[in-house]
Amino acid sequence: MKRTRPNDRVLSEREAISVFYSVFGMSPRSAIPFGDDVSAVPVKDDLFAILKTDMFVRKTDAPKGMTFKQMGRKAVVSTVSDFAAKGVEPLTLLSSLAFPRSFTSSVIEELAAGLNEASREYGAAVIGGDTNEAEDLVIDVIGFGLARREDIVLRSGAKAGDIAATTGTFGEVTAGLRILQEDLPSDGPLHRSFVNAAYMPRAQLREGLALSRSRTVTSSIDSSDGLAWSLHELSRSSRVGFTVTDIPLGRNIDEFAAETRADPYDLALYGGEEFNLVFTVDEKRWNEAVRAVESVGGQVFNIGYATERLDVVVRREGKEVPIRPAGWEHFITEK
Amino acid sequence: MKRTRPNDRVLSEREAISVFYSVFGMSPRSAIPFGDDVSAVPVKDDLFAILKTDMFVRKTDAPKGMTFKQMGRKAVVSTVSDFAAKGVEPLTLLSSLAFPRSFTSSVIEELAAGLNEASREYGAAVIGGDTNEAEDLVIDVIGFGLARREDIVLRSGAKAGDIAATTGTFGEVTAGLRILQEDLPSDGPLHRSFVNAAYMPRAQLREGLALSRSRTVTSSIDSSDGLAWSLHELSRSSRVGFTVTDIPLGRNIDEFAAETRADPYDLALYGGEEFNLVFTVDEKRWNEAVRAVESVGGQVFNIGYATERLDVVVRREGKEVPIRPAGWEHFITEK
Repeated sequence: MKRTRPNDRVLSEREAISVFYSVFGMSPRSAIPFGDDVSAVPVKDDLFAILKTDMFVRKTDAPKGMTFKQMGRKAVVSTVSDFAAKGVEPLTLLSSLAFPRSFTSSVIEELAAGLNEASREYGAAVIGGDTNEAEDLVIDVIGFGLARREDIVLRSGAKAGDIAATTGTFGEVTAGLRILQEDLPSDGPLHRSFVNAAYMPRAQLREGLALSRSRTVTSSIDSSDGLAWSLHELSRSSRVGFTVTDIPLGRNIDEFAAETRADPYDLALYGGEEFNLVFTVDEKRWNEAVRAVESVGGQVFNIGYATERLDVVVRREGKEVPIRPAGWEHFITEK
Repeated sequence: MKRTRPNDRVLSEREAISVFYSVFGMSPRSAIPFGDDVSAVPVKDDLFAILKTDMFVRKTDAPKGMTFKQMGRKAVVSTVSDFAAKGVEPLTLLSSLAFPRSFTSSVIEELAAGLNEASREYGAAVIGGDTNEAEDLVIDVIGFGLARREDIVLRSGAKAGDIAATTGTFGEVTAGLRILQEDLPSDGPLHRSFVNAAYMPRAQLREGLALSRSRTVTSSIDSSDGLAWSLHELSRSSRVGFTVTDIPLGRNIDEFAAETRADPYDLALYGGEEFNLVFTVDEKRWNEAVRAVESVGGQVFNIGYATERLDVVVRREGKEVPIRPAGWEHFITEK
C-alpha cells in the first residue's frame, strides 16, 4: 500500500518500537518502564503479576533444518529467558499459534510436544492459547509469573564500578547460524555441535533465579540479541558505560573463526539467539553472586566493569575498541 | 515438508485444538478448564489472574478495505470480548506484532493508534509487547485481569430451563463481510452500515461486567464464531441442549436477505466476528439480568431456553429445525 504522507518511511525495528512506546504512553498500572524485558502489574499487597509475550516467526526465527518440535521449544525458551533475566519464575504459559491450513496432524503434534516439553523443563505449564490460520508459522508464547517488586532485576540498576558478567560463553549459536545460512558443511563433529546449539537453545532460568535470590545483581538482560546489543541496552537503561576486558568464547570458536576467516570476538559479540544472562554485580558482592550461580550448577564469567563514561568498549591488546550496538540480523530460511 | 506417518492428515481447526489440549494436559495451576474463553491462575487468597491471548492475522481476520487502525482496534476487541463474556475486567494488555519490513511509519502509527484507542475505550492499557518481522501482519493481543473464582462466568453452568439470551442482534457484520467478500456495491447507506459494522466491531464489556455482578448468569460465551457455534459450545460445555424461539435480527437484515436471496435467519445464525454475548440465566432471575444490562445502557434479547435434550434447534413456523455447529468461515482478502 502506497502512502503519501510527508516523512513517511520504512522504520528500523527499534524505531517502530519507539512509535509504539510513544503512542501507548506509560500506564499507572505498569510497575516497570516500557522496554524492559517483562511487564509488571500490581496484584495485591506487595505482589506483582509479571507478564511477557515473545513472538516466534518461522521465517525469521527458525534456522534452516530446525524441526517443528525444536521450533515449539525455542518459542518457549525465548519467553522463559526473559523471566530468567528478571529473576522471576514463570508459573504458566499461554501459546497462540497461527499456521498454514496444510499442516498435518504430525506437524501439530510435534509443535505441541515441543511447547509442552520445554514448558515443563522450566517448571511452567501451558494452560491456554489460541489458534489461527496464516501463511507462515507464528508462535506467540506468553509467560505469567508473580514477584515482589524488589525481587525483579531491571535493566536500569547498574552503577559505575559494578562488575559485568555473563552466565555462559558466546559464539557457538552464531557459528551454528552461520553454518546453516551459508550452507557450510554441517556433518563434522565441530560444525554439528554449533548447529545443535542453534537448534536447541537453553534459557538460563536456574541461574537467573539464583542471582535474583542472592540480591547481588544490579541490572540484568538476556543476550538474545547478542552480547554487544545487551551491553548497549544495559548501558542505555542504567546510564553507565562498559569496559569489557574478557569475552568468554565458546568451545572451539577459535578454530571455527580461523577456518572461516572470522574474528572470534566478533562472532561472540555480534551474535544473537544465544540465551545467556548478561548482568552487573556490586563488586563487593561478587563472590556471593558466583556462589549463588555455582550452587545451581551454573557458571559465571567476569567480563569487565561498568564505567561512568557512557561508551561501550572492549580492551584488546592494550587498546580500547568501541563495541557497536549491533547484533545478528534476523535470518531468512527457505520454507 | 512431506510426512509419511500413517494417519497423518490435515486437521480442522477444532481437531488441531484437540491435539494441543491432549498434549498439554490439565495443569494443577489452572483454575478453568482448557477450552473456556480465558485461563485463570491462583494468585493470592481468593484472587485469580485471568489471562487471554487472541491472535489476529491480517489475511484471515481483516476484511477487505479495513484500515490499519481498524485492524489494531479489532485485535483488541477480540481479546476484550472474551473478558466481557467471562464478566472480568481487563486491566492491562500486551501486544505482540509481526509485520513486513516494508511497513512505513504511518502504518505503524495507525496500528499503534488503533490498539491504543481501543484499549482505552475498554479501560485497559497496553503496557508491553514484542515486535518481529513476518510476511503478513499478525497481532497477538494478550489481556490480563483479576477476579474471584465465583465472579468468573464459565461456559459450563447452564441448566435445563435456563433462559438463553444475547446482548445484541445478529446478521449485520455477516452482511458486511459478505458485501466485501462478494464485491457487492458498498456505497448505499444500507450496505455502508453493514460494512461499518464489520470494520468497527464492539466488545460488550459493560454488559458482561453488569451481568457478572448481577450473579444471574449461569453460562456465557461471546459470539465471535457466530450464534450457532456459540450455542453449540455452551451446549457441549454445560451438557444441555437449546431450543431457540426468537432470533434477534439486525436492522435491515430482512431487506439485505431479500436482496441477496439469503435466509435472514441463516445470516444471523451462521455468522461470526459479531461480538455479542450469548448466555443463560436462571429463569427466576431473568428480570434482574435484564435490569443489570439496561442499567449500563445495553439491551437483552430472550432467544429461547436450555433443554435436557442435548440438541440445538430453532423453532420456526411450528417446526423444530436443527441448528448446525457451523459459522462464518475464515475469509481471505487480497493483500
